[in-house]
Amino acid sequence: MNKLTFIFIPVLLVFMFFCSTNDVKEEAINIGEEKEILDPLPSWNEGDTKSNIINYVNEVTEAGNSNFIEIADRIATFDNDGNLWSEQPAYFQLFFAMDRIKELAPQHPEWKTEQPYKAVLENNMHDLLAQGTLGLVELVMASHSGNTVDEFNEIVSHWLQTAKHPTKNKPYTDLVFQPMLELIEYLQNNDFKVFIVSGGGIDFMRPWVEGVYGIPKDQIVGSILKTEFDYNDGNPVIRILPELVFNNDKGGKPIGIHNFIGRKPVFSSGNSDGDLQMMQYTASNSLKSFMLYVHHTDSVREWAYDRDSHIGRLDKGLDEANEKGWTVIDMAKDWKVIYPFELEK
Amino acid sequence: MNKLTFIFIPVLLVFMFFCSTNDVKEEAINIGEEKEILDPLPSWNEGDTKSNIINYVNEVTEAGNSNFIEIADRIATFDNDGNLWSEQPAYFQLFFAMDRIKELAPQHPEWKTEQPYKAVLENNMHDLLAQGTLGLVELVMASHSGNTVDEFNEIVSHWLQTAKHPTKNKPYTDLVFQPMLELIEYLQNNDFKVFIVSGGGIDFMRPWVEGVYGIPKDQIVGSILKTEFDYNDGNPVIRILPELVFNNDKGGKPIGIHNFIGRKPVFSSGNSDGDLQMMQYTASNSLKSFMLYVHHTDSVREWAYDRDSHIGRLDKGLDEANEKGWTVIDMAKDWKVIYPFELEK
Repeated sequence: MNKLTFIFIPVLLVFMFFCSTNDVKEEAINIGEEKEILDPLPSWNEGDTKSNIINYVNEVTEAGNSNFIEIADRIATFDNDGNLWSEQPAYFQLFFAMDRIKELAPQHPEWKTEQPYKAVLENNMHDLLAQGTLGLVELVMASHSGNTVDEFNEIVSHWLQTAKHPTKNKPYTDLVFQPMLELIEYLQNNDFKVFIVSGGGIDFMRPWVEGVYGIPKDQIVGSILKTEFDYNDGNPVIRILPELVFNNDKGGKPIGIHNFIGRKPVFSSGNSDGDLQMMQYTASNSLKSFMLYVHHTDSVREWAYDRDSHIGRLDKGLDEANEKGWTVIDMAKDWKVIYPFELEK
Repeated sequence: MNKLTFIFIPVLLVFMFFCSTNDVKEEAINIGEEKEILDPLPSWNEGDTKSNIINYVNEVTEAGNSNFIEIADRIATFDNDGNLWSEQPAYFQLFFAMDRIKELAPQHPEWKTEQPYKAVLENNMHDLLAQGTLGLVELVMASHSGNTVDEFNEIVSHWLQTAKHPTKNKPYTDLVFQPMLELIEYLQNNDFKVFIVSGGGIDFMRPWVEGVYGIPKDQIVGSILKTEFDYNDGNPVIRILPELVFNNDKGGKPIGIHNFIGRKPVFSSGNSDGDLQMMQYTASNSLKSFMLYVHHTDSVREWAYDRDSHIGRLDKGLDEANEKGWTVIDMAKDWKVIYPFELEK
């Protein structure tokens, strides 16, 4: 699979996981002779992006400030794929789906000749993508359903411990963004309640999000497959069924936010047009809000893509961000490091 | 409407609100001469029910105890109608729906002759109930949809400030259970994360649950109507549509818990067969769990009903509680006061 290129991967698959640590090392900065201030965002280069964030947080948390925001209203929502971890050359949840199909294949001899399974088993991305969105949805349904939620949790956890990214050759959970880990912790330290709001599936994210990002399991808003409760002779289980009941993407994001959180965010962060409605919703808050886009500009350390990408396309969102003065992270310029393992060098 | 008796009200309407305070006065108990211990549940009479609760909390929060539960796993889920506030002679959300229909009637002259609206406008409960569940669902759809979520929030808030219970003649939010307010706070003080898990609608509960119960808006799991996001020329809104997309009752409760919370509770509290699956799901936790049923036994101070009631029927749940040794609150015997206003006497 390593040598395949995944250039064109349609929507709908947007979950993920990560198992590195959430420890954020703060840099001490000496100011004057006695005073020492800890930099809450040590992996961010100095500049407008960083100062915009810090100025906003200072302003809305300062008692007496006209833009002060009560703690209960400090809701921050973060997209996941391409925003908190990488999403190239394909959403990591798709890699999971493909590996899972291969694992299940012995029980499905018919898959050898049926698409989209045949393409997966033959590592033929060209044929797989030719199946279109419906083919990929079928792949997700076949790979994500049929188990109880507890079993699926184990399956995802085990995959994360063993699978490696095809080109970075690292566990997927190593490919989270160190600067964003720092930002999450910085907001939490300032009494923001931070939520993931991702097109990825809740059951794919739950096994690792808490440990990797420090965000509680009940603060994950994601796409949902249908489930059924089975009393199971006194050993109740919840089984995952092959039907998408909620697609938490684009206009679905404000709806997911409303249903799960019940408050309009004051801070939102995303990286694609799929996050635009969440940004617009946040921008309409009567409280002072902050919209933050990650722009993938670093072809050396990560990837560079935006308007023409079929994964995480950022086109309309970039225009609207520029037009409305939202903060756009220039990954190559604003981030000292991308991944946590770079700190260990 | 005051003189009507609402004896038979089918399922599906289970939300509510409450505007009294969440301040819990703790009673000081003098033990010996110097030591003063605060009773965390002052409105509960001494007895097995109270000591079961306190013993459980002590056990699972005591470091080193073999049944110690990590803070992240201390998830408590509470049903609302009949569990945290009264639900007789009909779910309070139904009273809201009826009042709302009357308010909207001038815009719908056809309602004068069409059921179920005609029955509501004529205060004819007999005819209303003869419309069956479908008629009541139509009533809820007509009364709860058509507005943005912000508008609906205002509508519910205003109703709560003005409407009174037909027989108690009190604002509905006065009719919460003081002992349960104390229990919620006691659990929160012991680092339990407390959630509402109600068949009631999230948009009916959100306006008041936080203020009345001290439970954050994002910790409410309830039934969900379909909504749509509308960019609305730069003033984004979420509109409520007349379609039930998630019914958080019976087997829906474990599913709601899984989707919203992502962890199996260790503590669950309910009062009807609609909570039984939540209880069973909680009881299946590998961590030590606590199942608590409210049994409405007080025909003088509140209401007395169980196996034959058409609101909050407690039949199978009562059998299973007895069989499995779950704790059952005998309201008449276990609670010193029912409502907060009794404390002021």
